Amino acid sequence: MIRMGIVGYGNLGRGTESAIMQNPDTSLYGIFSRRDPSTVKTVSGANVYNLDDILNHKGNIDVLIICGGSATDLPVQTPYLAEYFNVVDSFDTHAKIPEHFMNVDSAAKKGKNVAMISVGWDPGMFSLNRLYGEVILPEGKDYTFWGKGVSQGHSDAIRRIEGVIDARQYTIPVNSAVESVRKGENPELTTRQKHTRLCYVVAEENADKDRIEKEIVTMPNYFADYDTTVNFISAEEMKRDHSGIPHGGMVIRSGKTGMNKENTHIIEYNLKLDSNPEFTSSVIVAFARAAVRMSKEGISGCKTVFDVPPAYLSPKSAESLRKNLL
Amino acid sequence: MIRMGIVGYGNLGRGTESAIMQNPDTSLYGIFSRRDPSTVKTVSGANVYNLDDILNHKGNIDVLIICGGSATDLPVQTPYLAEYFNVVDSFDTHAKIPEHFMNVDSAAKKGKNVAMISVGWDPGMFSLNRLYGEVILPEGKDYTFWGKGVSQGHSDAIRRIEGVIDARQYTIPVNSAVESVRKGENPELTTRQKHTRLCYVVAEENADKDRIEKEIVTMPNYFADYDTTVNFISAEEMKRDHSGIPHGGMVIRSGKTGMNKENTHIIEYNLKLDSNPEFTSSVIVAFARAAVRMSKEGISGCKTVFDVPPAYLSPKSAESLRKNLL
Repeated sequence: MIRMGIVGYGNLGRGTESAIMQNPDTSLYGIFSRRDPSTVKTVSGANVYNLDDILNHKGNIDVLIICGGSATDLPVQTPYLAEYFNVVDSFDTHAKIPEHFMNVDSAAKKGKNVAMISVGWDPGMFSLNRLYGEVILPEGKDYTFWGKGVSQGHSDAIRRIEGVIDARQYTIPVNSAVESVRKGENPELTTRQKHTRLCYVVAEENADKDRIEKEIVTMPNYFADYDTTVNFISAEEMKRDHSGIPHGGMVIRSGKTGMNKENTHIIEYNLKLDSNPEFTSSVIVAFARAAVRMSKEGISGCKTVFDVPPAYLSPKSAESLRKNLL
Repeated sequence: MIRMGIVGYGNLGRGTESAIMQNPDTSLYGIFSRRDPSTVKTVSGANVYNLDDILNHKGNIDVLIICGGSATDLPVQTPYLAEYFNVVDSFDTHAKIPEHFMNVDSAAKKGKNVAMISVGWDPGMFSLNRLYGEVILPEGKDYTFWGKGVSQGHSDAIRRIEGVIDARQYTIPVNSAVESVRKGENPELTTRQKHTRLCYVVAEENADKDRIEKEIVTMPNYFADYDTTVNFISAEEMKRDHSGIPHGGMVIRSGKTGMNKENTHIIEYNLKLDSNPEFTSSVIVAFARAAVRMSKEGISGCKTVFDVPPAYLSPKSAESLRKNLL
């Protein structure tokens, strides 16, 4: 059994707990939290330890799954922990990946561990599909669409507006844009042409809804470049209709082959996810398995999904994979 | 530049010739044919050599792409050539892959070469997606649909019927089955429920069309288990409307997560290909690049798509991949 530890117990931590239980060869050693362990109740009944004591558990853990946020947790936690453990994180600030890689790489090499960063679906499976698409069809173009799904960052941005009690923001791909890409038309698409934003807002009783709506649709970076729809709903409707954390999207590669580029090919990788954190953590657990295997082979340093031979993700033998999946 | 050789100059060989020219870091050393080289005219003007002389070219070739058929060519050619060259083939008789692997593995190890077998889209990219789907969603089910596309084997089977001049067979996924899978309904599907077969036949002038149709739809293995439609057309219509070799299909993984399996996730990998051989050879050339890189690292033996770290498929540096695709 591969003994896994979880650092941080939010949505992603709980998803990881569940994913570890779904796999035949992985077991959950425990959860490490910054909170007082006696106050943390785990879904599975797993042990909870204080994150400050984590180095005392070194011998009992094959790989740590770090479930913190990309803004402030992971840039500190992953380099620190990679010196002592094999680790996996889901660092998703695309622009800062090279910097994060460098920090984690030197720590992991120092400790002779494998540290797999930016695992999940984007970055993660979508990245893999951008890579596979580009190497197969070098003369082509790729498109990533997200949604329909809840964007946590955009929902939070709305919640910070005065008079807003709760909010949920759905990112939705523009259907005509997707269809044009699928037809191989290789459109040039602006931000506005690719996605729309749909917001559900619970406002305070006497709040000025017109002002709230205007603040949302004009908000720079988050909404100003998009066609945004704002719906005001009650707290009951929010709870009833918008409690889930669905997401998804697609990576489409469109490319040409042939001596005269006469043939068009479309590769589409499409995800429809009921639970964003549970799917993300399911990807993470598979790559955590691979991290342990790579570590046992003497490999160390920072790795990404691009570095993992797919067979390493599976608990099955290479022979069985060839026989049953190839 | 990675110097590539092509063995066999049919549709796949020509597709490979074109794919090598589309990649910035690959060059075509020459084509090896069993035919008299003076009778083989290549599209690109590449040199043609007699296959019997291939060992004399050993020092000039980094990897050979073997473009023969799986029935009789590859079981002989791949093990033989793997002793002297890094090789890639697209062996696609799924049931015989373990046997082919064993034969090729010992030859490649003897010659200290990398031999990558069963590369293409199925086996190949579809296999990879079956694997990624299974490791991410271990509690789930996967479905492979083929088409709409031309099946060469089925077209050939019709051509062998008395009174048939030419034939083209399209494999078509049943739309209601695909939609049910996409909804996460996890249907149990019989062969008949997954695909239909659509045939276009050019018959001899006085042929008994009823007999031909009956022979087609009742043909064991090929058609008897399917709903098959037969259309008789003229030779002109065949040439005008059915000269292409399109194909495609999809691998769909449907799985559940959550402590109570309350969340459903759908992963779909979908291909729409104008030219089956050109797409297949585009995949092959990317994996040939990886084969050369693995060989330079001292790896030898038989490998499949499951063994290749995705980054090895790209001419770009790991740094560039992380910065631009992750």
